[in-house]
Amino acid sequence: MSLRRVRLSAAMSLDGFIATEDGGYDWIPMDPDIDFGALFAGYDTILMGRKSYEDAQRAGHLAMYGAMRILVCSRTLRPEEHPAVTVIRDPAPTVHALRAAPGKDLWLFGGGELLRSCLDRDLVDELELAIVPVLLGAGRPLLPGGALHTRLRLLGHRLYPRTGTLLCRYAVERASHGAAG
Amino acid sequence: MSLRRVRLSAAMSLDGFIATEDGGYDWIPMDPDIDFGALFAGYDTILMGRKSYEDAQRAGHLAMYGAMRILVCSRTLRPEEHPAVTVIRDPAPTVHALRAAPGKDLWLFGGGELLRSCLDRDLVDELELAIVPVLLGAGRPLLPGGALHTRLRLLGHRLYPRTGTLLCRYAVERASHGAAG
Repeated sequence: MSLRRVRLSAAMSLDGFIATEDGGYDWIPMDPDIDFGALFAGYDTILMGRKSYEDAQRAGHLAMYGAMRILVCSRTLRPEEHPAVTVIRDPAPTVHALRAAPGKDLWLFGGGELLRSCLDRDLVDELELAIVPVLLGAGRPLLPGGALHTRLRLLGHRLYPRTGTLLCRYAVERASHGAAG
Repeated sequence: MSLRRVRLSAAMSLDGFIATEDGGYDWIPMDPDIDFGALFAGYDTILMGRKSYEDAQRAGHLAMYGAMRILVCSRTLRPEEHPAVTVIRDPAPTVHALRAAPGKDLWLFGGGELLRSCLDRDLVDELELAIVPVLLGAGRPLLPGGALHTRLRLLGHRLYPRTGTLLCRYAVERASHGAAG
């Protein structure tokens, strides 16, 4: 069993947004050829930010992730009020501990501020983005928080012709890859 | 000879930026497998905004476009001070006139405000984007100006494996396609 990688997996508009400004996802077509079961099977843990968690909770989507352990990164949520998930304050120690143990990969869910914070701290191994053929012009950006210059390496891509969705997998190029490199 | 289409052709970071905040392009790798001659050969006219024009002028890149006619869309440039190009105030009448005449395609250059203005006025037929494997976090967005919802149709894609650049061609889905549909 290989060591865990931390992989972002998200749908994104061609112009770089992961949700509309009000958290809407209705611009994402449900492509019947995308095998979500197979995608989910690569993970045993989800790491999400507070906004994604609240969106998923409101939409009743949390049950969809079955037996996966859900870690919610938040400085404000009270753990005792969210018994179905594990609230953590700082992703770094948790990610380091999980990476050091065998298991399936860790799903960095949704992008946005959590992705930014994890990228800035060298905690991300891969990005898997379903590029949806739509322009939104505004919304929640994949990567808020200002300028950086993170080089990626394309690992593979696949076209889903019914919706024109391109699923692209990238490795984050880093100076130090640690155990996951 | 077919009627002209208006096609955006630009390089974009994975997170949706076409240049850094100061107009820099040094994040775009020169992929030796991209045949710029073949790309250029599809066009006889370039439509660019003032910022792209001034960038190209400063970098000495205007000569690169050879015999193509260059139209610069600007409300402030004085035509008599820019004899090498044609300064136009409003792209719509020019685009309508060019579309009605036979010829090669019209290259909508660079993206940004000009792309937004042309999309809002239903003047764009296709987007050809070279998605560069890099995250910039900030810069000049492909599409500034706020929310919209423009559906696209993937026409084709090609991988350039040396740099991991994905060249993706999309048609803009519109209610009315006019002569170019």
